[in-house]
Amino acid sequence: MTKLLKSWISSANSPDTDFPLNNLPYGVFSVGNNDAHCGVAIGDMILDVTAAEETGVLTPADVPVLDVPFWNDFMDLGRDTWATFRSKLVNALRDGSSEQPKLEPFLVAQADVTMEMPFAVSEYTDFYAGMQHAKNMGDILRGSPDLPANWLHIPIGYNGRASTVVVSGTDIRRPLGQTKAPDSDAPVFGPSQRLDIELEMGAIVGTGSKMGQPITMDQAEGMIFGYVLLNDWSARDIQGWEYQPLGPFQGKAFGTSISPWIVTAAALEDFRTSTPPREKELLPYLIETKPGLFDISLEITLQPEEAATATTITKTNYNRTYYSAAQQLCHHAISGCEMNSGDLLGSGTISGPTRDEFGSLMELSWAGQKPFTLDTGETRSFIEDGDTLTLKGHAQGNGYRIGFGSCSGTILPAIDYET
Amino acid sequence: MTKLLKSWISSANSPDTDFPLNNLPYGVFSVGNNDAHCGVAIGDMILDVTAAEETGVLTPADVPVLDVPFWNDFMDLGRDTWATFRSKLVNALRDGSSEQPKLEPFLVAQADVTMEMPFAVSEYTDFYAGMQHAKNMGDILRGSPDLPANWLHIPIGYNGRASTVVVSGTDIRRPLGQTKAPDSDAPVFGPSQRLDIELEMGAIVGTGSKMGQPITMDQAEGMIFGYVLLNDWSARDIQGWEYQPLGPFQGKAFGTSISPWIVTAAALEDFRTSTPPREKELLPYLIETKPGLFDISLEITLQPEEAATATTITKTNYNRTYYSAAQQLCHHAISGCEMNSGDLLGSGTISGPTRDEFGSLMELSWAGQKPFTLDTGETRSFIEDGDTLTLKGHAQGNGYRIGFGSCSGTILPAIDYET
Repeated sequence: MTKLLKSWISSANSPDTDFPLNNLPYGVFSVGNNDAHCGVAIGDMILDVTAAEETGVLTPADVPVLDVPFWNDFMDLGRDTWATFRSKLVNALRDGSSEQPKLEPFLVAQADVTMEMPFAVSEYTDFYAGMQHAKNMGDILRGSPDLPANWLHIPIGYNGRASTVVVSGTDIRRPLGQTKAPDSDAPVFGPSQRLDIELEMGAIVGTGSKMGQPITMDQAEGMIFGYVLLNDWSARDIQGWEYQPLGPFQGKAFGTSISPWIVTAAALEDFRTSTPPREKELLPYLIETKPGLFDISLEITLQPEEAATATTITKTNYNRTYYSAAQQLCHHAISGCEMNSGDLLGSGTISGPTRDEFGSLMELSWAGQKPFTLDTGETRSFIEDGDTLTLKGHAQGNGYRIGFGSCSGTILPAIDYET
Repeated sequence: MTKLLKSWISSANSPDTDFPLNNLPYGVFSVGNNDAHCGVAIGDMILDVTAAEETGVLTPADVPVLDVPFWNDFMDLGRDTWATFRSKLVNALRDGSSEQPKLEPFLVAQADVTMEMPFAVSEYTDFYAGMQHAKNMGDILRGSPDLPANWLHIPIGYNGRASTVVVSGTDIRRPLGQTKAPDSDAPVFGPSQRLDIELEMGAIVGTGSKMGQPITMDQAEGMIFGYVLLNDWSARDIQGWEYQPLGPFQGKAFGTSISPWIVTAAALEDFRTSTPPREKELLPYLIETKPGLFDISLEITLQPEEAATATTITKTNYNRTYYSAAQQLCHHAISGCEMNSGDLLGSGTISGPTRDEFGSLMELSWAGQKPFTLDTGETRSFIEDGDTLTLKGHAQGNGYRIGFGSCSGTILPAIDYET
């Protein structure tokens, strides 16, 4: 396995940093009221690659692609450009590089910036690839942990709402909507009382496919640019009343948070792992041609508004999911559905087999039947106003880690609504 | 009721034209290999408003908004601008206008152009507001015409796929996917055998709403820019196997066709009609503050590849739907879901109470159990390769009609797929 690649930026050489030279994730940042720029995280610094491109010091392509505050134009250039630019970055930032004097002027401290959305989300699709989550939800909602009949054959998914995908740090407003108690004749209108999170990974489509043209698994692997942490905020009471027969809609539409740094597929290459053994044989178009998952440790913390510390409520791993992002992407395009650069694919909630690995409060509190206790002594079944929920994740290398930073959001009280 | 407004363009004064001066729908067209321009249909001509704006003859705003091949920038300016520009157009194109000599150079014959997508679709949402359709589908799929429990309370909808919304005239490739026969243990992969259409109206959101900020019914009415005909192509066998529990996905993702001319809400004002009587009282946020539907006659024709004529297979009316576009939009934003200019809302399949008003082949052939006969003598249960399906629609005024033109698509055979 690869070792730590040493950089002339000393903070990048710590075994605890999320952003060693081995990682080099892509984000968008702003300083004060200045225009947002594209940047690459290295240790506790950011290399301002928009400024570096503008001055000709470091150019990913023959034409400017980093003169916009999103990575879509770069992604659209495809794998060869991705690989060449990554090589240039590694070469320029490695310990002893002759490029050091030229690049030093483009370094910005992460402590001084505001992170923005790293890419423009074309469309957002959310999958359902966590087997334990699917079993738990079946048990809770339908009284049986049996998987839906299609679950072992299809990477089940639904189209989500791209307009409310926001970057970590954005507050989330408690949603309003219709809910109906089981013993009630009619629904009521008001703030969700069962606000939840879902721990997911997000895969970002870098290059697209054409309408009417299905893709193969190999093509799907090659189209994925990178990954982020993803929190699919969910209003369980709104969802429960609305989701039959057409699936989740307003119970999911009010917000989805992602971590600000796109960790590239290239940076994760050493951490590839196969999907779990198949319980039923897949149709040939979905069979993995290379290991499609990654060994990424994940955790969730919850911090109440006035609390001094956050409580870790779950630890699990991305390798728990039954379908890889490539399988999901291949299925997504199989009907001839056009895929575009900037499409975001949520993995589905990642839950391991035991309670300490469950990826949502719905599962952790078993729909509110078993409230759990925080380090502060408070209990929770669902999210309360002022709570901050944070996802973290990293792949552990030999003396270094490929980190994702964090994905946080704080819940604001519902607004007063008058018709 | 308003009478025909006479224009100096004589073809606009025919009682049979879809595009009298009362209409003035907005589209995007190209001539040969030239750049696409924004245009306004008038009789059998198009007023090239991109060119008119460029030369300063007719300007909708202080800044150029028609210098791009889509109407989104114009829509985003809001209702006052929409009204002012419409007044300018009516004044300039009415019989006896002194503007005639200035505008004549900007007229192009519709016969000489190719129509393009009239706007960039931000996101596409498909609703389920046809009561007879919902009852028919329940009867066919679940053995009971009973509506889902939430149906009379919520304008049920799901997020569709924006990347494959295409303009009338675009061929549609028969999709590949997984299907499973009821008596089979495992799914198979191949071309859909149950390819269908859905007759719908599409409402186009002109101005958006903010994340976290629900809207009222009055606001929703004011945000809708206009309407198109919409064909939500559907692969019933793919849909049937995939749709539980998360709703339609690849069975709908391969294509959605719209008519090329956006008929504005302003042009339809005289044809407003209330939604049908409520079977259950709605929650206050969804109660109509003005009649939200329109009296628009709709029909579907089917023409086999070699046939000389098309057969009309259905005639119905938009006034059959249970929820208006404003109700759907209001519900869509109620959770705090951000809505954007260019969002497209499908009404749901419009079916009237009797067989001759059914809006899909699934209903017309009752899932293939009752094939129907075309004028050519051929029979159909679902769509065959080479078939052209066309939707038409118009509101009938006093001596004139507000027409939508047509929404057509021809089915190409599935492609060979190799893993």
